[in-house]
Amino acid sequence: MSTKNKLDQITTRPFPASRKVYVKGEMHQDLWVAMREIGLSSQAKEPDFWVYDTSGPYTDISKKIDITKGLEELRRKWILARGDVEEYEGREVRPEDNGYSKPQPSEVEVFDRGSRKPLRAKKGANVSQMHYARRGIITPEMEYIAIRENIGRKAAADAQPAKFKGERFGAKFPEFITPEFVREEVASGRAIIPANINHTESEPMIIGRNFSVKINANIGNSAVTSSVAEEVEKMVWSTRWGGDTIMDLSTGKNIHNIREWIIRNSPVPVGTVPIYQALEKVNGVAEDLTWEIFRDTLIEQAEQGVDYFTIHAGVLLPYVPLTQHRVTGIVSRGGSIHAKWCMAHHKENFAYTHFEEICEIMKQYDVSFSLGDGLRPGSIADANDEAQFAELKTLGELTQIAWKHDVQVMIEGPGHVPMHLIKENMDKQLKECFEAPFYTLGPLTTDIAPGYDHITSAIGAAQIGWYGTAMLCYVTPKEHLGLPDKEDVRVGVVTYKLAAHAADLAKGWPGAKLRDDAVSRARFEFRWMDQFNLSLDPEKAQEFHDETLPAEGAKFAHFCSMCGPKFCSMRISQEVREFAKTEAAKGEQEMAQKFREQGSEIYKKVG
Amino acid sequence: MSTKNKLDQITTRPFPASRKVYVKGEMHQDLWVAMREIGLSSQAKEPDFWVYDTSGPYTDISKKIDITKGLEELRRKWILARGDVEEYEGREVRPEDNGYSKPQPSEVEVFDRGSRKPLRAKKGANVSQMHYARRGIITPEMEYIAIRENIGRKAAADAQPAKFKGERFGAKFPEFITPEFVREEVASGRAIIPANINHTESEPMIIGRNFSVKINANIGNSAVTSSVAEEVEKMVWSTRWGGDTIMDLSTGKNIHNIREWIIRNSPVPVGTVPIYQALEKVNGVAEDLTWEIFRDTLIEQAEQGVDYFTIHAGVLLPYVPLTQHRVTGIVSRGGSIHAKWCMAHHKENFAYTHFEEICEIMKQYDVSFSLGDGLRPGSIADANDEAQFAELKTLGELTQIAWKHDVQVMIEGPGHVPMHLIKENMDKQLKECFEAPFYTLGPLTTDIAPGYDHITSAIGAAQIGWYGTAMLCYVTPKEHLGLPDKEDVRVGVVTYKLAAHAADLAKGWPGAKLRDDAVSRARFEFRWMDQFNLSLDPEKAQEFHDETLPAEGAKFAHFCSMCGPKFCSMRISQEVREFAKTEAAKGEQEMAQKFREQGSEIYKKVG
Repeated sequence: MSTKNKLDQITTRPFPASRKVYVKGEMHQDLWVAMREIGLSSQAKEPDFWVYDTSGPYTDISKKIDITKGLEELRRKWILARGDVEEYEGREVRPEDNGYSKPQPSEVEVFDRGSRKPLRAKKGANVSQMHYARRGIITPEMEYIAIRENIGRKAAADAQPAKFKGERFGAKFPEFITPEFVREEVASGRAIIPANINHTESEPMIIGRNFSVKINANIGNSAVTSSVAEEVEKMVWSTRWGGDTIMDLSTGKNIHNIREWIIRNSPVPVGTVPIYQALEKVNGVAEDLTWEIFRDTLIEQAEQGVDYFTIHAGVLLPYVPLTQHRVTGIVSRGGSIHAKWCMAHHKENFAYTHFEEICEIMKQYDVSFSLGDGLRPGSIADANDEAQFAELKTLGELTQIAWKHDVQVMIEGPGHVPMHLIKENMDKQLKECFEAPFYTLGPLTTDIAPGYDHITSAIGAAQIGWYGTAMLCYVTPKEHLGLPDKEDVRVGVVTYKLAAHAADLAKGWPGAKLRDDAVSRARFEFRWMDQFNLSLDPEKAQEFHDETLPAEGAKFAHFCSMCGPKFCSMRISQEVREFAKTEAAKGEQEMAQKFREQGSEIYKKVG
Repeated sequence: MSTKNKLDQITTRPFPASRKVYVKGEMHQDLWVAMREIGLSSQAKEPDFWVYDTSGPYTDISKKIDITKGLEELRRKWILARGDVEEYEGREVRPEDNGYSKPQPSEVEVFDRGSRKPLRAKKGANVSQMHYARRGIITPEMEYIAIRENIGRKAAADAQPAKFKGERFGAKFPEFITPEFVREEVASGRAIIPANINHTESEPMIIGRNFSVKINANIGNSAVTSSVAEEVEKMVWSTRWGGDTIMDLSTGKNIHNIREWIIRNSPVPVGTVPIYQALEKVNGVAEDLTWEIFRDTLIEQAEQGVDYFTIHAGVLLPYVPLTQHRVTGIVSRGGSIHAKWCMAHHKENFAYTHFEEICEIMKQYDVSFSLGDGLRPGSIADANDEAQFAELKTLGELTQIAWKHDVQVMIEGPGHVPMHLIKENMDKQLKECFEAPFYTLGPLTTDIAPGYDHITSAIGAAQIGWYGTAMLCYVTPKEHLGLPDKEDVRVGVVTYKLAAHAADLAKGWPGAKLRDDAVSRARFEFRWMDQFNLSLDPEKAQEFHDETLPAEGAKFAHFCSMCGPKFCSMRISQEVREFAKTEAAKGEQEMAQKFREQGSEIYKKVG
């Protein structure tokens, strides 16, 4: 396939009325933080609106995108400047990395790395952001994040009515995020910055409950026939709509090669579940897995630049029987692979017994742990059971081991949980895992709506995000049924973005409400295009509007299709407002005050 | 348009693998409660599954549907048997009822009522369900409801693990709903049975927080060109997917005639906002409204059989200035009409000053109040403000007036509310309105996602349903943007059905979890067709599955498209289970127990 052909498939257009803007760092002068500016119409009596932006250079018309070259290496100079890494030859790519038993021409074009070699920590060094943080160092990554998280905070502090504080459930964040605050949060383990030194292309981001709630989108090659451009486009598409990280859950052939393309072109951190690839290396026979194969896979992926690994080190042999009477057993793929291995060999999980060795690898590349919940409930019936909480406790123990090595950790969470049992998950996780960030899948709040599980889970996700979960893993409408297509990915990402935003609002994240207010003002003032452009999915909003009122003029009309021209409450309300202003002079306000003071007595005249 | 043509447009097919079943009453022998039985596959080792069913006779293949005749008059004999009603000539239909200033041939075919005349209470009588309840009478309607609400409760009581009690926030319901419990709840005002004596076709249902959470779907004629069959089909379609009530929000021409068709064919209660039609009668000029025109409209609609009226009697003149500094002013159409009238005349809202007269009308037909929240917030910025809560207090005063007349009342609620302010709405409503049932629109938990407002609002709806809201008014994806089409209505209803179910689960409604468990067992046992058929939208679930794996055989396969044949966690999990059973004999369980007792010490061997 030609390069030309590849590029055609990548979505590079900016969002409607939007342009990319960059904010310069103060501590680090070579640091420019990417944001998106939404231009408002001339009717708007307010400045253009800036939003957090995960789409990378793909939405910047001034940048030339060439996926065969990969993105600019934003972080390379920062990493090298720290003087604690070395280039080395790296592990040679083997046929089994792509799922083949013997050398053969790749079915997928190999990304040309040119002279670029992997980086790793110099002997004895530790390159994790946590390690720097604990030594009091504010990295450029930390300053980048502080600026990024501050979008709207100044204006927010000026504009927020006092009552709008939210309920924080123990989360604590200042009015302004400083680089030092970022450092403290990372040092304490309450937040992580997934930033493998070999993923130099990524824009720094943070996952922690004292920051805005993040979302992850899963992608993965569905078949050997899917092209490289298709796979890269899945990543671009997910981050376009708001994916803060992506997970590459590929299985099958060519996963090494495809992953390389994804990482080289991804502006957001990339997570994987290495056991999936390890299993491919033993032809899908879980019993044939060994620690050596797993270890080799970790190094392979760390060299490529994977930013976080899901590792199911908490699936212990004695916990497996606890799942025996569940309605849906073990539903985590990784969990079931480890469980099967443990049972077959009558041995403890090798990811658990070799956990310190894994930490040694992680800290050489700054790969973060995403400690997998292999025993998460797969149904309402199994929520919050003994198996789930036994594993959680073990994940807490492992967190402390990782922290001993200054390795960053987040904890994965369920799954399927009815609303009244959600908070218990959050509370237990904070306690058992010493406030390490929580990263949950949904949770789905009922099992009865396959085809709508982005919604059953958004209900749970919004709640658990409010309670303190740091990142929400999206669920698409195809969950439990099939493979998501592009439209499903868009719906899944936007659904999770709105759930994360609802959580930010509820926890009183100061900048959050500004966007709601901007949309609402646009709505009330009949600035239709502004309403669309300020929303999470401007294209869908406009498409829905135009289905009923396609005429161009309708986008300037002081009414909409719901009530029609004569009968618009917003217009009547504006008339009422004008009227009230005039009446105010006649003592209307005074009358209202008097009425309120009299309270229910007024009624007596009528009743 | 011919009758034949009309019937073709009505959806009458049963749900997949489902048939209508009827449960006989005990106290009232001529009472048969309609339910839906979902037939399971031969692989299922469990009985067929029964679910609450709102679709009426349209899904019963043994019933002949003829919308020109209307549905069977299920309740007529019960009503007549009470001996307190009389037939009378009724109000003559006038041109302005259909929006015309002078007599002219209707653009919409007139429903032929034959010799049927309206019913009303005999002089001095009161025919409200609340009136009967307070006199200790258990009506057939009450027994019907008890049986209907009990679906699955017996099995539930046998099967529920003790931990699954839910958190009820003060709601109190017994393990089994008795007709006497229904009576008590209606007598106390905590629940209502919307059941106009002229809507004899409706199947009794109840709205109250000690029952399952209900949902409402809004319909309405969008243009004079829409045909009668189209309008009836909107109602049939909404109730097919689970609408417990529908509201006819028609504006414009022919609304009297279209409403007649809808009511005669509706198996669920029908609500309206009478001020909409009253406004049509004065050509859309709010200032020209009078109490007499409003009163006349109430009688007109009561005679037709409307089961509940939204009346914005709490929009008081002194409250209007309280909305002046809002971001989105008054967003309720009814609210803005009343506000405009109040301001123009400098007089108090006629629905407030004539409230007792309205009660006199309501009790003659058993129309329930749905006291409208004309000052509900239309944006996150305006949530829980002074205007909103001032009106709520007045609605509480009005509730007590209505109860003095034994007229049933529910209270409408917001709107747009961030998650952390939702519970305050519920708590205040219960307190200020003396536990009258709450009926909320959403609430939407953020303003930034037009095009996805069925989801922003389902998040809030599920929560407020859990906290105690009795009925949730659906929001479709087109909210704020345009008119919902059929697919939008389906998505809106199913989304609200799943939100209501999530709320039922969380409050521990005993029968609720049975359906989740049935779906989960089907999922775990690879009974694909059972999984689809047990779900809220079987057609969509199967469609999504078949997009990836269309072969018929795939619906019997022990894997799915997400992981493929080699790599299925559910299959591995079943293998693990078999293994565990064998191992159990070898003391595996004992080992697990020992391990748990040792707790974190185990790690020390590794760490």
